[in-house]
Amino acid sequence: MPRVTPAHLEARREQILDAARRCFARNGFHATSMHDVIAEAGLSVGAVYRYFASKDELRTAVAEETVGAVLAEMSAIANHEPPLSLVDALARLLDTLEPRLAEPDSFARIAVQAWGEAVRDPELGEFARHVMTRVRGALRVLAERARETGELPADTDPDAVAAALVALVPGYILQRVLSGQPDRDTFLAGLRALLPS
Amino acid sequence: MPRVTPAHLEARREQILDAARRCFARNGFHATSMHDVIAEAGLSVGAVYRYFASKDELRTAVAEETVGAVLAEMSAIANHEPPLSLVDALARLLDTLEPRLAEPDSFARIAVQAWGEAVRDPELGEFARHVMTRVRGALRVLAERARETGELPADTDPDAVAAALVALVPGYILQRVLSGQPDRDTFLAGLRALLPS
Repeated sequence: MPRVTPAHLEARREQILDAARRCFARNGFHATSMHDVIAEAGLSVGAVYRYFASKDELRTAVAEETVGAVLAEMSAIANHEPPLSLVDALARLLDTLEPRLAEPDSFARIAVQAWGEAVRDPELGEFARHVMTRVRGALRVLAERARETGELPADTDPDAVAAALVALVPGYILQRVLSGQPDRDTFLAGLRALLPS
Repeated sequence: MPRVTPAHLEARREQILDAARRCFARNGFHATSMHDVIAEAGLSVGAVYRYFASKDELRTAVAEETVGAVLAEMSAIANHEPPLSLVDALARLLDTLEPRLAEPDSFARIAVQAWGEAVRDPELGEFARHVMTRVRGALRVLAERARETGELPADTDPDAVAAALVALVPGYILQRVLSGQPDRDTFLAGLRALLPS
């Protein structure tokens, strides 16, 4: 038997997750079966079930992997040294999202479908709450630092500002996925006109 | 035979739409069948099909009715005389949304699920684009008038501002539906801290 290295296991896992991502983006979570993912991955039934025991496990893994990368970048932007202005931080956040808005099996398309599923799926709902709490946390750091630098007034409530800023992220993603507009520069120009400068 | 009045026809139609709304909010469009709606409405198969030939027709009617009321209120806020400040206009918009965020078969829960379905359903996708164009149009009026009153600089691009403001609406709805936060006052406090005053 061939030796199975950790790198091989990881590559195989990624192959399955990529296949699942394409299936979910194309047909949604609900209409995707384990069989679809197995066919898309071009692997045997046993090979796929070795990594993921159910569609739910697959879904959780896709969601965590996809969202984890975005959250890490968001946190890095909020904690940037020296502190970025709100508009500059949001500009970088849009840059982070841009490649994820484009492809047909994109993060953005999966995200919008996952929100819809999360409304009536307790497990996905719990995951969505967890993600929102983390996004709010990252943007709270941004608001706190904007208060420290004087960009926002000293009596600003960073939780309230975070709640308002959080809305921009899914609101932008949704517009792009469903209508193709606005482009990054137009959206940023709108933010520049509205936010402190 | 009893006389069938227009009021009776309209009441029956509403009864079916209410049943459909409850089913969609509870189980999503995808998992709801005509049979579910018929059972929920407590009507005969024939009575329901007399009004709606398919689940798609039902869905379109629910979506148009629900969204139409919100769009009308949004347009009234944008065209208010005298012009409202951006924050005051957004405060009224939040007031409009508030009762629609609460109930378990609420507009908001249906909306978030509809966004998810719209990603891969061409008819619903077209409807979503149409709604977004109208929301953007209403908020463009708001931005133009804020420029006229001097609240926004004279060189402001109202399309860009509208694109940024549009994001706040679904972003707020999504947060409320999936995490129950932020409440209206917290969100508004965040907007007050960020927007021109």
